Amino acid sequence: MIAVNEERFLKSLHDLRRFGASGVGKGVVRPAYSEADIAARDWLAGVMRAAGLEAVFDPMGSLFGLAPGRSILLGSHSDSQPEGGWLDGALGVMAGLEIARAAAESGGPPVSVVSFQDEEGRFGVTTGSAVWGGVLAQAEADGLTDRAGVTLGDARAAMGARLEAPVDPARFSAYLEMHIEQGPVLDGAGEALGVVDAIVGIRDRMITFTGQQNHAGTTPMHLRRDAFQALSAFNARINERFRNIVTPATVWTIGHVRLHPDAHSIVPGRAAFSMQWRDGDADRLARMEAVIRETAEEVARERGMGLEMGPMLGIEPVAMDAGLVAALEGACQAEAPGRWRRMPSGALHDASNVARLMPSAMLFVPSIGGISHDFAEDTAEVDLVIGLRALARAVTTI
Amino acid sequence: MIAVNEERFLKSLHDLRRFGASGVGKGVVRPAYSEADIAARDWLAGVMRAAGLEAVFDPMGSLFGLAPGRSILLGSHSDSQPEGGWLDGALGVMAGLEIARAAAESGGPPVSVVSFQDEEGRFGVTTGSAVWGGVLAQAEADGLTDRAGVTLGDARAAMGARLEAPVDPARFSAYLEMHIEQGPVLDGAGEALGVVDAIVGIRDRMITFTGQQNHAGTTPMHLRRDAFQALSAFNARINERFRNIVTPATVWTIGHVRLHPDAHSIVPGRAAFSMQWRDGDADRLARMEAVIRETAEEVARERGMGLEMGPMLGIEPVAMDAGLVAALEGACQAEAPGRWRRMPSGALHDASNVARLMPSAMLFVPSIGGISHDFAEDTAEVDLVIGLRALARAVTTI
Repeated sequence: MIAVNEERFLKSLHDLRRFGASGVGKGVVRPAYSEADIAARDWLAGVMRAAGLEAVFDPMGSLFGLAPGRSILLGSHSDSQPEGGWLDGALGVMAGLEIARAAAESGGPPVSVVSFQDEEGRFGVTTGSAVWGGVLAQAEADGLTDRAGVTLGDARAAMGARLEAPVDPARFSAYLEMHIEQGPVLDGAGEALGVVDAIVGIRDRMITFTGQQNHAGTTPMHLRRDAFQALSAFNARINERFRNIVTPATVWTIGHVRLHPDAHSIVPGRAAFSMQWRDGDADRLARMEAVIRETAEEVARERGMGLEMGPMLGIEPVAMDAGLVAALEGACQAEAPGRWRRMPSGALHDASNVARLMPSAMLFVPSIGGISHDFAEDTAEVDLVIGLRALARAVTTI
Repeated sequence: MIAVNEERFLKSLHDLRRFGASGVGKGVVRPAYSEADIAARDWLAGVMRAAGLEAVFDPMGSLFGLAPGRSILLGSHSDSQPEGGWLDGALGVMAGLEIARAAAESGGPPVSVVSFQDEEGRFGVTTGSAVWGGVLAQAEADGLTDRAGVTLGDARAAMGARLEAPVDPARFSAYLEMHIEQGPVLDGAGEALGVVDAIVGIRDRMITFTGQQNHAGTTPMHLRRDAFQALSAFNARINERFRNIVTPATVWTIGHVRLHPDAHSIVPGRAAFSMQWRDGDADRLARMEAVIRETAEEVARERGMGLEMGPMLGIEPVAMDAGLVAALEGACQAEAPGRWRRMPSGALHDASNVARLMPSAMLFVPSIGGISHDFAEDTAEVDLVIGLRALARAVTTI
């Protein structure tokens, strides 16, 4: 058994949230490659070294804390959404760090820790672990742009001389990622832990309708080619057509919309928006993609719109390693008897990419009210500690 | 007859478009109170003085070029939309300036000229002439904000010591405003001139739906309170319900949309958007307002949304002065026999406000392709000159 220090673990979590603190509750604003994100990673590197780990930034800016020889890898990510909570990926990083530190102190198995870069997808989808996992080529990643038009290549250049060569995945025997559920299931059931058996697949792409920008007072309705009206019609139709395809677990979201020129008195000439959909079944994801394409082409044809479909980003559904899932289940039953469950992850995680390199699995703790990607995101500290203890126990049994 | 100098008029129009030139065709970017707008007004003041007029900026930054004694007032505005054309309001200002200059040279009637501030509504609707016309109190105007959160009070402070006391409307016997049609009617009919007999009324207000920001992967569809979905449903319903109320001349537009936090992977917690509608009948505007409010409240109720309706901005429909309309008709028949018409203005103009102070009327020239509020806005120079000559002729007959 690894003797983790619960107070030290909780203090280090609170220390980390000072970087990019939003001033609203425990919320943080720490997007990938921002000043706050880089400062947090520099601080983490120092804590790793103090714990006897070798701190290494890979070419994407993902930070590894390496134990000597072959080791188990724990971690997650420390970047946040534009408005994020204090736990999200930070929990998995600090839990991994505490377990690596405690293992070194108590002669436990060698444990390394990682904080992947850009898990929240400023430039796409989990780009840091996607490049490490070979899902995304570095050159392709560097060409991705955020919504302000900044390229990932320019953004990671801000980390300058910190960046070194990629870390060899062969150093690691397994990957375990602890994370908040980010949904209402565990909290609603009063349960303490969730063992993830699969991560849903995601598709994400920008769609742009281009009509005719014109004066909002002098252009008769029947002569307009209004790009916002095209977006509204597209949205209504896919909501209707998805009914015959989806399950209760399927989700789809239009979360980002940009009109041009975006003025009260001008008929919008262009509407660019994000279309994202998630499901555990790759065939269903493909059927939804077909409906999206056909519906967008249909609306564009009917309304005389230009149509542009951006590059498709996403990740296939991924099953977790059976042996690691069994080890986590045993640890959950020991730490929270009868208060845990197996469940799929509706959220994407770095484990989706790491699973291509080594056996991987995930452990969830409850999200109060199911709220995440929000300043209000939180989890009771007693549940954070139960998660830490279960993860430490699993490490000793694999 | 006033002997206008057509070359001088056209040259001054091209000189003006250098201020805020967009680099795209003859397009300009000259929003109210921007550096380019203020620089253009300083240049205009110099041209006015050279023409023997007294240049005066009123408290809003509207620029008057005053002839001695009681005079006819000509003009429009020189600010532009975020992306605007070279003519829009600039045409009426430079035509007025040429006629004032020519009248002074040839011993014609005293003619003054004005360029109103913020006609394009960075802070609301024709705020410069609205304050001068007593439609909007200065203190209320100063509290209006643009979409970046800047107040009009702070913006006009940028004009500093230029700003003087209001100009007494009693100095003027009548107001004539020349403007591009900004619609497809004259160009489509191959006509050269339009005499405006009425300006439609406008209503404009922001509407905000507030739902629940949450994770786009872990929040089941049936538990979501997605503010963008509320906007899309609202839009579809008003389009349906307006059918029983509107005429072919009625228009409505959602031209500005802002989601929060506006990220691919987050269910939008807030959607703020502009709702603008225009018609020549005040009763119809009121019936549309009732449908908008009832539909917004209905959608908010059904979807568990907070609803906020911003302050109502707008202007009542305004009939032009019959005597001035007759004078313009006579001038049009003399300059372009059989190639002119009476028509309403679907666009708002400063004349809507000035008509509260003195007899007012408007003259339209064609917009090629009906395009305006766009870099591509244009009018054949031969038509600009016909408009100048018709306006100058009308001035001598009132």
